[in-house]
Amino acid sequence: MADPQPSQQPPSQDPPQVPAADGEASKGPSKSELKKRAKEEEKARKAAEKAAKQAELDAQKAAADVDFATEFYGKLPLNQSQSRPGRKRTPVACLSPDLDGQTVLVRARVQASRAQGSKMVFLNLRQRSDSVQALLILAQGKVSKQMIKWAAGLQTESIVLAEGVVKKAPEPINSATVQDVELHLTQLHLISGLDTKLPFTVEDANRPEQTQQTEEDPEYKRVLLDTRLNNRVVDLRTETNQAVFKLQAGIGSLFREFLEGQGFIEIHSPKLQGAATESGASVFEVSYFKGKAFLAQSPQLAKQMAIAADFERVYEIGPVFRAENSNTHRHMTEFIGLDLEMAIEEHYHEVMELLDGLFLHMFRGLRQRYAKEIDTVRKQFPADEFKWREGPEGTLKFSFKQAVDLLVDDGVPREKLDDIDTENEKRLGRIVRAKYDTDYYIIDKFPMALRPFYTMPDSEDPTVSNSYDFFMRGEEILSGAQRVHDAALLAEQMRQKGINPESMKPYLQAFQLGCPPHGGGGIGLERVLMLFLELNNIRRASLFPRDPKRLEP
Amino acid sequence: MADPQPSQQPPSQDPPQVPAADGEASKGPSKSELKKRAKEEEKARKAAEKAAKQAELDAQKAAADVDFATEFYGKLPLNQSQSRPGRKRTPVACLSPDLDGQTVLVRARVQASRAQGSKMVFLNLRQRSDSVQALLILAQGKVSKQMIKWAAGLQTESIVLAEGVVKKAPEPINSATVQDVELHLTQLHLISGLDTKLPFTVEDANRPEQTQQTEEDPEYKRVLLDTRLNNRVVDLRTETNQAVFKLQAGIGSLFREFLEGQGFIEIHSPKLQGAATESGASVFEVSYFKGKAFLAQSPQLAKQMAIAADFERVYEIGPVFRAENSNTHRHMTEFIGLDLEMAIEEHYHEVMELLDGLFLHMFRGLRQRYAKEIDTVRKQFPADEFKWREGPEGTLKFSFKQAVDLLVDDGVPREKLDDIDTENEKRLGRIVRAKYDTDYYIIDKFPMALRPFYTMPDSEDPTVSNSYDFFMRGEEILSGAQRVHDAALLAEQMRQKGINPESMKPYLQAFQLGCPPHGGGGIGLERVLMLFLELNNIRRASLFPRDPKRLEP
Repeated sequence: MADPQPSQQPPSQDPPQVPAADGEASKGPSKSELKKRAKEEEKARKAAEKAAKQAELDAQKAAADVDFATEFYGKLPLNQSQSRPGRKRTPVACLSPDLDGQTVLVRARVQASRAQGSKMVFLNLRQRSDSVQALLILAQGKVSKQMIKWAAGLQTESIVLAEGVVKKAPEPINSATVQDVELHLTQLHLISGLDTKLPFTVEDANRPEQTQQTEEDPEYKRVLLDTRLNNRVVDLRTETNQAVFKLQAGIGSLFREFLEGQGFIEIHSPKLQGAATESGASVFEVSYFKGKAFLAQSPQLAKQMAIAADFERVYEIGPVFRAENSNTHRHMTEFIGLDLEMAIEEHYHEVMELLDGLFLHMFRGLRQRYAKEIDTVRKQFPADEFKWREGPEGTLKFSFKQAVDLLVDDGVPREKLDDIDTENEKRLGRIVRAKYDTDYYIIDKFPMALRPFYTMPDSEDPTVSNSYDFFMRGEEILSGAQRVHDAALLAEQMRQKGINPESMKPYLQAFQLGCPPHGGGGIGLERVLMLFLELNNIRRASLFPRDPKRLEP
Repeated sequence: MADPQPSQQPPSQDPPQVPAADGEASKGPSKSELKKRAKEEEKARKAAEKAAKQAELDAQKAAADVDFATEFYGKLPLNQSQSRPGRKRTPVACLSPDLDGQTVLVRARVQASRAQGSKMVFLNLRQRSDSVQALLILAQGKVSKQMIKWAAGLQTESIVLAEGVVKKAPEPINSATVQDVELHLTQLHLISGLDTKLPFTVEDANRPEQTQQTEEDPEYKRVLLDTRLNNRVVDLRTETNQAVFKLQAGIGSLFREFLEGQGFIEIHSPKLQGAATESGASVFEVSYFKGKAFLAQSPQLAKQMAIAADFERVYEIGPVFRAENSNTHRHMTEFIGLDLEMAIEEHYHEVMELLDGLFLHMFRGLRQRYAKEIDTVRKQFPADEFKWREGPEGTLKFSFKQAVDLLVDDGVPREKLDDIDTENEKRLGRIVRAKYDTDYYIIDKFPMALRPFYTMPDSEDPTVSNSYDFFMRGEEILSGAQRVHDAALLAEQMRQKGINPESMKPYLQAFQLGCPPHGGGGIGLERVLMLFLELNNIRRASLFPRDPKRLEP
């Protein structure tokens, strides 16, 4: 039963007490110092006594544990704070024929447990995206019938600590991700059981979305999105979701990596605002001591102020809040904004081109570094490969006017195209994919009337603005523009949109104090994730999504 | 006047229009295709016409610009969207004798402007933490008296685009950070002026905090913190603040770097909560459509649920909200939490040791990679060097009981030490620094009564908990613990603290569904920054700080 693996942590040589702060070097002895030392020696003596006693207790307990485990395959003590043998846990993904014959220790969930008569139990042990088959076999003096029964009765999703010998599998095990070895168990402890009925199994939650109940698989129950979200903790355990959230973290990481390489600095701007900013209608109000505050709809104002404060190039990753009573597949009341803002030297296309470079970096990074995770998600959510243009021709860019022309050519009446609504956006996405073979493109030069007050108008045609949207699969994922850095023009544009400049005084002041020309954009993290993977609902791209009807879990 | 520098961006060969989407490869021609092509050709013809016209306009405008600039040194057009010559801007920090005789283009703020008679103006041009001296000298047919007057009148903090020849300085220029060269200006454009009076100068805001008005420097006005925060955009332009926020970003970056190396994954948990969590008293209430929501005091519940969802090791960087009506030097109503949570194999000290490794990584990283920024801040905020223990002895750790003993030995009555209040924490910091020569230490094993309901009690002494606080300079910067992963014990501990388990059902459910033993901690980003640098007030470590009395700017 000795563990042949080298321990990651050395076994604790000292009794597992908090290391004493005494015994440290101190300066020249004085009377009070000597008194203190005597005290300390007394303390040390007592500590040693206690430690010896503790060691004895530990030894007894360890012995008892072993008995308990080998006799009853029982439950581990709730908290292991008094002993620390330092035995290495082997990740399930690392189990391979190389370890044949070795004893390993694995912490995993019981995905399935099935008795074969009264002499054997098959267990499927799952650890995140990996799983292995384990066998517990009746053995004189080692594994009793009672143990077999106990193991067969382990509830699905229980967490166990399993000790076993790695054995090459006689034939590939299709029910596990580790197919070439199985574990022959020598010990099994319960770390955490379930106190409630499982709302659905992780296996069911991981099935391909299009699969319907069939005669061959009468047991299968399709798990609806609402059921999943109500029991998100179980839903998140699927192989698919483990991959989805690795990809989510990956997007954030690629975003930062690119921008830090371009001289951007990360900032954190306050979400609590003194005034309802940007557009009064869709802001959450907060009780703030005896007054009130509002939740930021984006870091727009703060990041522009950071530019007025000479930060030159800033980015922020943080929550943004939208009080829109909209329950579509692509709206949430809280999501993660990937925002950036930068000073412009000559032309706002400097910003647009940097943003394009950023997206290409993210797309390439996802495909190169997360191919396994993308494949995993595809199994549950079959999707067309996400396409973008590489090479010297560069990303497809066209103007709002040209976008309208494309839609008109496709049969949409021009008089319905003062703005491009969600439906026509999607239509445009299909037109573009058919014509240019890309799912990623940029629309530039939006009409001024469609953009917020802080958008810079074109210097030659003030009905048009220096602004752009980026699209993935026909849905907007970034909105950005050159901003107005001139306080007088900014105040004028506020008035035109019915905003009293007095209500945004601290923001306006930033530009009165001198600010370079600048521009930027804001990306919805969950939207990028949803559209890249075709998850079809943004809630699947959020750990614990929030919408007008959902504040829990 | 030609720029001898290689251009970063190639000059735009095409007219600066939005690239046309037409002309792309399309599949086999059909009747409608041919019709379309004719249309496209017509479009292309028109575009070419427009482009030619545009090029002419641009040329006229560029010529006008040059005239304008050389004649009047005037204001640049507000937005440069129609021309993009692609001339490189040289960062002020890169100006050096190597460039002697070369013409460069610099965008910078006018920190000071002083006429020397009617024939010369000295300008101090500042760019973030760097500055250079520039001269404008009367020259027949090139620089008129009117220009000299205009430049001498430029308001402090105006942003200019300056073209000039780099010249070796005859003697070191003490008033600038670039001391060995000066710029002899050939052109000067105003990019952004001021529409308001400057509340204080950036020079004054950058002076050492202890400096008082003296007879030698009768002009100097000490800028009070409130004045700074009311005009944060100007205050942030100081060399000190530019460094402070590079350090803030640095801490976040080191935090992520260490944890990603340890297999942690970044998560984003919702700030909008359905219930007032953790402790009802200090939670902000939000109007949520027809109901209400609450702002998360920390990602505590969500990150534990992520562990129950098999994420194993998670971290989050995000805002946390505290509705405490407290206006101390170390409290804000919103700050950035650096949070982590991880599964435990054997002992909660696995978490404590990982957190210790994390802090050492951050301290070492700050000292090694940000030495220049730390020095910059020290000039305004003189501080004792932050000390921590390196080498085999490791970080100083002691138990809460031992901390109490240290205070009792120092003269604090034991009966006042059921808890260690802020004052005694600071006292302990001084004792520890005197005795152990460190500003960084860990206190372990807090009494259960002092910790939140989700804290795991010690298995042998339930009055004590498996929890710890980390300290810098006698102030708490991290609080953490092993958490209760057993639903029954968790519910029991809720009841003991007067919380109805029903009110936290989705959280409790996570543990009913099986959860591994786990622990973690939460770090206040601004506190770490404040204490490392001894900024003395946490507001200085926040871009736009929020407290009960401040919601703006």
